[in-house]
Amino acid sequence: MSKKGLKIATIGGGSSYTPELVEGFIKRYDSLPISELWLLDIPEGEEKLTIVGNLAKRMVEEAGVPMTIHLTLDREKALQDADFVTTQFRVGLLDARAKDERIPLKYDVIGQETNGPGGLFKGLRTIPVILDIIKDMERLCPHAWLINFTNPAGMVTEAIYRHSNWRKVVGLCNVPVGIKMGVAKALDVEADRIHVDFAGLNHMVYGMDVYLDGKCVTEDVINKITSGDSSMTMKNIVDIGWEPGFLKALNMLPCPYHRYYYKTSDMLAEEKKNAAEEGTRAEVVQQLEKELFELYKDETLRTKPEQLEKRGGAYYSDAACNLIDSIYNDRGDIQPVNTLNKGAIGSIPDDSAVEVNCIITKDGPKPLAVGDLPVSVRGLVQQIKSFERIAAEAAVSGDYDQALLAMTINPLVSSDTTAKLILDEMLEAHKEYLPQFQ
Amino acid sequence: MSKKGLKIATIGGGSSYTPELVEGFIKRYDSLPISELWLLDIPEGEEKLTIVGNLAKRMVEEAGVPMTIHLTLDREKALQDADFVTTQFRVGLLDARAKDERIPLKYDVIGQETNGPGGLFKGLRTIPVILDIIKDMERLCPHAWLINFTNPAGMVTEAIYRHSNWRKVVGLCNVPVGIKMGVAKALDVEADRIHVDFAGLNHMVYGMDVYLDGKCVTEDVINKITSGDSSMTMKNIVDIGWEPGFLKALNMLPCPYHRYYYKTSDMLAEEKKNAAEEGTRAEVVQQLEKELFELYKDETLRTKPEQLEKRGGAYYSDAACNLIDSIYNDRGDIQPVNTLNKGAIGSIPDDSAVEVNCIITKDGPKPLAVGDLPVSVRGLVQQIKSFERIAAEAAVSGDYDQALLAMTINPLVSSDTTAKLILDEMLEAHKEYLPQFQ
Amino acid sequence: MSKKGLKIATIGGGSSYTPELVEGFIKRYDSLPISELWLLDIPEGEEKLTIVGNLAKRMVEEAGVPMTIHLTLDREKALQDADFVTTQFRVGLLDARAKDERIPLKYDVIGQETNGPGGLFKGLRTIPVILDIIKDMERLCPHAWLINFTNPAGMVTEAIYRHSNWRKVVGLCNVPVGIKMGVAKALDVEADRIHVDFAGLNHMVYGMDVYLDGKCVTEDVINKITSGDSSMTMKNIVDIGWEPGFLKALNMLPCPYHRYYYKTSDMLAEEKKNAAEEGTRAEVVQQLEKELFELYKDETLRTKPEQLEKRGGAYYSDAACNLIDSIYNDRGDIQPVNTLNKGAIGSIPDDSAVEVNCIITKDGPKPLAVGDLPVSVRGLVQQIKSFERIAAEAAVSGDYDQALLAMTINPLVSSDTTAKLILDEMLEAHKEYLPQFQ
Amino acid sequence: MSKKGLKIATIGGGSSYTPELVEGFIKRYDSLPISELWLLDIPEGEEKLTIVGNLAKRMVEEAGVPMTIHLTLDREKALQDADFVTTQFRVGLLDARAKDERIPLKYDVIGQETNGPGGLFKGLRTIPVILDIIKDMERLCPHAWLINFTNPAGMVTEAIYRHSNWRKVVGLCNVPVGIKMGVAKALDVEADRIHVDFAGLNHMVYGMDVYLDGKCVTEDVINKITSGDSSMTMKNIVDIGWEPGFLKALNMLPCPYHRYYYKTSDMLAEEKKNAAEEGTRAEVVQQLEKELFELYKDETLRTKPEQLEKRGGAYYSDAACNLIDSIYNDRGDIQPVNTLNKGAIGSIPDDSAVEVNCIITKDGPKPLAVGDLPVSVRGLVQQIKSFERIAAEAAVSGDYDQALLAMTINPLVSSDTTAKLILDEMLEAHKEYLPQFQ
Ligand SMILES: [Mn+2]
Ligand SMILES: [Mn+2]
Ligand SMILES: [Mn+2]
Ligand SMILES: [Mn+2]
Repeated sequence: MSKKGLKIATIGGGSSYTPELVEGFIKRYDSLPISELWLLDIPEGEEKLTIVGNLAKRMVEEAGVPMTIHLTLDREKALQDADFVTTQFRVGLLDARAKDERIPLKYDVIGQETNGPGGLFKGLRTIPVILDIIKDMERLCPHAWLINFTNPAGMVTEAIYRHSNWRKVVGLCNVPVGIKMGVAKALDVEADRIHVDFAGLNHMVYGMDVYLDGKCVTEDVINKITSGDSSMTMKNIVDIGWEPGFLKALNMLPCPYHRYYYKTSDMLAEEKKNAAEEGTRAEVVQQLEKELFELYKDETLRTKPEQLEKRGGAYYSDAACNLIDSIYNDRGDIQPVNTLNKGAIGSIPDDSAVEVNCIITKDGPKPLAVGDLPVSVRGLVQQIKSFERIAAEAAVSGDYDQALLAMTINPLVSSDTTAKLILDEMLEAHKEYLPQFQ
Repeated sequence: MSKKGLKIATIGGGSSYTPELVEGFIKRYDSLPISELWLLDIPEGEEKLTIVGNLAKRMVEEAGVPMTIHLTLDREKALQDADFVTTQFRVGLLDARAKDERIPLKYDVIGQETNGPGGLFKGLRTIPVILDIIKDMERLCPHAWLINFTNPAGMVTEAIYRHSNWRKVVGLCNVPVGIKMGVAKALDVEADRIHVDFAGLNHMVYGMDVYLDGKCVTEDVINKITSGDSSMTMKNIVDIGWEPGFLKALNMLPCPYHRYYYKTSDMLAEEKKNAAEEGTRAEVVQQLEKELFELYKDETLRTKPEQLEKRGGAYYSDAACNLIDSIYNDRGDIQPVNTLNKGAIGSIPDDSAVEVNCIITKDGPKPLAVGDLPVSVRGLVQQIKSFERIAAEAAVSGDYDQALLAMTINPLVSSDTTAKLILDEMLEAHKEYLPQFQ
Repeated sequence: MSKKGLKIATIGGGSSYTPELVEGFIKRYDSLPISELWLLDIPEGEEKLTIVGNLAKRMVEEAGVPMTIHLTLDREKALQDADFVTTQFRVGLLDARAKDERIPLKYDVIGQETNGPGGLFKGLRTIPVILDIIKDMERLCPHAWLINFTNPAGMVTEAIYRHSNWRKVVGLCNVPVGIKMGVAKALDVEADRIHVDFAGLNHMVYGMDVYLDGKCVTEDVINKITSGDSSMTMKNIVDIGWEPGFLKALNMLPCPYHRYYYKTSDMLAEEKKNAAEEGTRAEVVQQLEKELFELYKDETLRTKPEQLEKRGGAYYSDAACNLIDSIYNDRGDIQPVNTLNKGAIGSIPDDSAVEVNCIITKDGPKPLAVGDLPVSVRGLVQQIKSFERIAAEAAVSGDYDQALLAMTINPLVSSDTTAKLILDEMLEAHKEYLPQFQ
Repeated sequence: MSKKGLKIATIGGGSSYTPELVEGFIKRYDSLPISELWLLDIPEGEEKLTIVGNLAKRMVEEAGVPMTIHLTLDREKALQDADFVTTQFRVGLLDARAKDERIPLKYDVIGQETNGPGGLFKGLRTIPVILDIIKDMERLCPHAWLINFTNPAGMVTEAIYRHSNWRKVVGLCNVPVGIKMGVAKALDVEADRIHVDFAGLNHMVYGMDVYLDGKCVTEDVINKITSGDSSMTMKNIVDIGWEPGFLKALNMLPCPYHRYYYKTSDMLAEEKKNAAEEGTRAEVVQQLEKELFELYKDETLRTKPEQLEKRGGAYYSDAACNLIDSIYNDRGDIQPVNTLNKGAIGSIPDDSAVEVNCIITKDGPKPLAVGDLPVSVRGLVQQIKSFERIAAEAAVSGDYDQALLAMTINPLVSSDTTAKLILDEMLEAHKEYLPQFQ
């Protein structure tokens, strides 16, 4: 890595999340000496990039760290000799997400950013772009690590393993850290006393065992949850409780997204109600973002505004900055990330992406072996992995039948007939971002 | 095996299917010299046993084969020194099946004999009885083969492997032979020119490749099906076509029961309509059976009546008799049966039950290795296997939470909350047959 | 396949074994209507090709079957539109084999045609030639089946799977049929009453269970062997008995070549004695062949001469002709061959070659699943597979260090230092046939 | 764990190594507050126990830590409520080891403490004793961790997993730390800048990759070794260099014991020479120990004497104390230990023992997944695992044929005939310690 300090390139730099990231980098400057942060965006995002970029510059100035912020629309310049490339872009912006959420609902199917038909289409739009970025990275910064936040992070990481030769990639999500924080809150202890054995797939990860000061307390935590404690939730997912008996027999912590699978009908009803009353999540977020960018414009604002927390990306910055810091400094600490399985989870092929606790080293994440998943969840996890792989193939090939197969085998889609109706409507709605299907 | 001819014990001998079986044995008498056929039933079934048993006696007499038919309510006598034990009993009779079909529908969930909540409860009622029979077999006929027709045949076979030491068991189903016959009809050729590579689980089996005179014609057959040919169906499952693109990308033949998973919402709508208009399948069958037993009473009837075919068990007799014949005669022919996996299907544990093409020998079935299943179906198959294993555990333990877990992870059940409602209602409805849950 | 009768191309057609093959084809003409048999050889083998080819013509004439024998040095012509290609060539002829046998002995290491350093060098010489033939087949007869007799058949088949895209290949060996015949002889019954469950690798295959009329008699057979019966041997391997206790605990039938691994020091002593007294096996065979070709020249000879049996290739013809017949006629019978594992043997990768019982169909061999090998042999089998894979890589790459690695990890080679000495001497001795190492 | 400080029980407390252990505990007293150290031995060892125990008491007194040393021959008292149990006993003492080393040499077979016939017999003597200790632990200290130093540590750990229900066990060896230290010395850097990815089995472990400050330097280290650097060795194994080409193609660091397998003939020659000139290793050690105990008797000696280092157990104390410290303090650091595989190494069953890098937590070691081992070593590792499993079965069953099978499949034994000769002589020589074979 470069001698004079690190160069980071952030693709989708105009995101409202950027102040989170910048704050994280500023806080860690001593151990993670970033000299250049390149915020890259596309022409349609130039206005937002300018607003958030200028805030970033003011934050750095205020903090007094020697980090230069570069704003650019030129991918070549951003990637050239970068040490880390982080992605937080959204193909089609929140408008596309709103369609991902709205269209399936018409067919009584969950509409969600990363699950079901919405997740499929986010993947179809995103994967070709990521693979294109990687082609540039091979040329411009072959030693860089790609830290991928862009959702669906599991499917995207799988696609990179299956459809490119790039291996220096980590998929990242704030769900595991959210679970850990929730456990700490539920037990009313400091978070650093809690350890959770995470294993599964992105947005399909289980807390297999929970430890307090090294002692296994899984059963206690499950009792807490089933007796009504609701801290095990996340802001962007409605709060519906689990059946106590189900959770006791499962004997693991599900993640919030598991509700789409284990509480499908309840979530659907809730989603439909929300969409009617206050709009889908994307629509709510669009309003929030509008307000945020108004705030960001204020030239007297020189630190991350508190309002950003409502946006829902709690711990994203910490997850990303801690990961980059541990790779750069070869820390060898444990973090749950999306990486090559290598046998860590028995039911999943060695060469697939999994979300699992890893030791983070300069050589990247090294997964902790968990053996086979408990029988009760092996099927669902395998099914999502099947879906991710077929979806990634469809994203690359642009094959209509493959996309229909992916949609039909998704456990949230109720029939092949419905799958076809949704597929056709969504292909039309997103056609601008799906050139491979023309 | 016994020198003077074979002894067969048929548990649930009073079934309306028995004439099928008897006809099959008569036809094969030369190669399969059965000297004693013991039809066993429970006191509640004595009347039907007498009726069908007497018909069996007349059939044997008419055919002029030296086979003795014994009717008994005494399991000891029936099992003593048997060479083969076949099971076709139904705990709770068709009344219980009607509940399995009706109750889930109330909650907008598929109600079916072997799938979803109905399949779970049929398993909960049946597995303890089968394990009890096996205890008797260990004592009374330790060298016998158990040929299990009793549904859910996959879950029952899995339960035997997991919860007993008995290994001389084969689970049997007529679905694969039905698919083969359907293919032959679709291609308008003799069935013996067709070979299908079957692999999967019971009622979740795929025709991975189809051969005509040894030449692979999978694609042709899929084109036939997607272009409207409807012969790939079975009488007891409503006829709804597949989306052509889905099937082409799947590139295998699904079995009729796959429609519950790939066409859930359509099947549910159909089921609800049928239940309202003509009754559930069990209710229809109850009427059919009534008529059949009226027929059977006719003392001039000395052969299997044609009307039996409507009952839906096409090829059951052939499947069973061919299997017994091939074991007895060490034929080494290929038959699709439920047996220990032994690595034949990559995604499934070696010590689980699978439905797969086997060589049938005196030493039992030896599965043909198919490698891993295609990615697209690995998840669903794994999920059903997960369900079968948790369900079998609940059947043995009588643990409420395990049963709730099994119900919730079943892909046909829409949420843990719904699962609990259905579970509670069904536990109450079937409590007479579920002593382990008291 | 061609309408007017089959075309077979035999590479290495000038071999002394050819009359075996021709006799096999003549006997099966009714079911296997071969219209053209092309015997191909290289210029150095032209004289032998002419002698044996003319005998073949006389045999066909004598038998009165309408099969044309073509003798040629032109590979293009031989392969053009062939239905089956059989290989029985030997790169470097028996002179090379003699070196494979002699050189290792100098270093107190087993010198053998297919095992140890000899097997490695036979592979290094043969694999590039086979891969070259396959390139021609892809162009000239893309629908043909390659039936490979050329040793080391296991390593060659592995190399084809790893280093080409050709999948219509079967590796063939007469060892399993020899074991079966030996068992029949030991039990004094007709061979067709015996069935053996074979599994392992080529020349490393185990008879996992033995059946007489379908009944398992493994223990009886092992008792026969350990009590002094010596029929379980083959002519080209010296007859040394097994330790009874070892074989009883192993509880399987080893193959004759297993003696090199389980009786290394005894075999080495025997080999050294034989080499000193009567010459190595290659040298003995050279003399035998000289006599055979003298016989073949006799124009009055119009059938296979009895003396051929001494050559050691018992059952080769039967194995080959039965395989071709079963593929052509889609027989679905069981034969032990070298094919893709596909999960049949648990310890071996799905995409490696194994020697295992298969159903033989028009679509090729379909392996029977045996699950994992017994713990006691899992290591040795894995070790030979490791050796085969590294050796195949060295054969393709011509990399000296890879070859040294292959030699060193071979269980018959006693140290890396010795490995290097043998490697250097053999590379020099065979350099004419190892252009990839120049 | 106990509130008032930890209780440690050391079985074989009279060992000459005990001062190492005591020194390690004293150094770590602040983080590892041991209040009671129980040194347990058998009556035959009472004299040595008294000598070394008194030295331990003086060491503790000198250091001024409040740790009580208890000397006892009563296993009940030693184990009662222990927090950790460490084992360093030797069934049959060094006399037995001398036989393990001498007898095989007579038959031109490696005689070694933990490999070949010697390792087998050490296992046969040790495993029943360990399983007996575990029975006591289940009763007396069910929450204790068993830290097993007793060799053959891999086979013993495997035996515990296969033949008991005890899971709180870690097998420990100083070979990996020795390799790491050797690498540091070879690169002339501080050891804590070096990280090695260890994977394999006990005494069959590979350094799969080496890192300096997080950067992979495997190739550099291999170049150092092959260019003559000899620091990669251990005192108790003679120093013979590797063939450079072999090591380059292997592309991993072998451990010193690998020389028995990759340099068998050289090691045998060396062993025979040493045995003739200076005695076997056990005989040399016996002399060393005599001198050590003379030293220990000196009442003015109040610290670990320097001469102990010659004994060969470098890093044993550090390995043990660091492990106990990390378990007690839930440190989460990486240590290479023998533990349940759980999928960490692809070729080895999930429920077998492996030696692999683990995170050490209060809940025990959690292995890092390495995927499948490189093809070149998969066979040898599998073979040693096969040997360990069959040997452990023989140790438990006392079955002669199983023991012969274990001996024969060991790669260091040259034939089944030789195996039987060695087995018979060693069974007789050790019969006092092998009651299960009577
Ligand atoms: Mn996420
Ligand atoms: Mn069925
Ligand atoms: Mn052979
Ligand atoms: Mn050690």
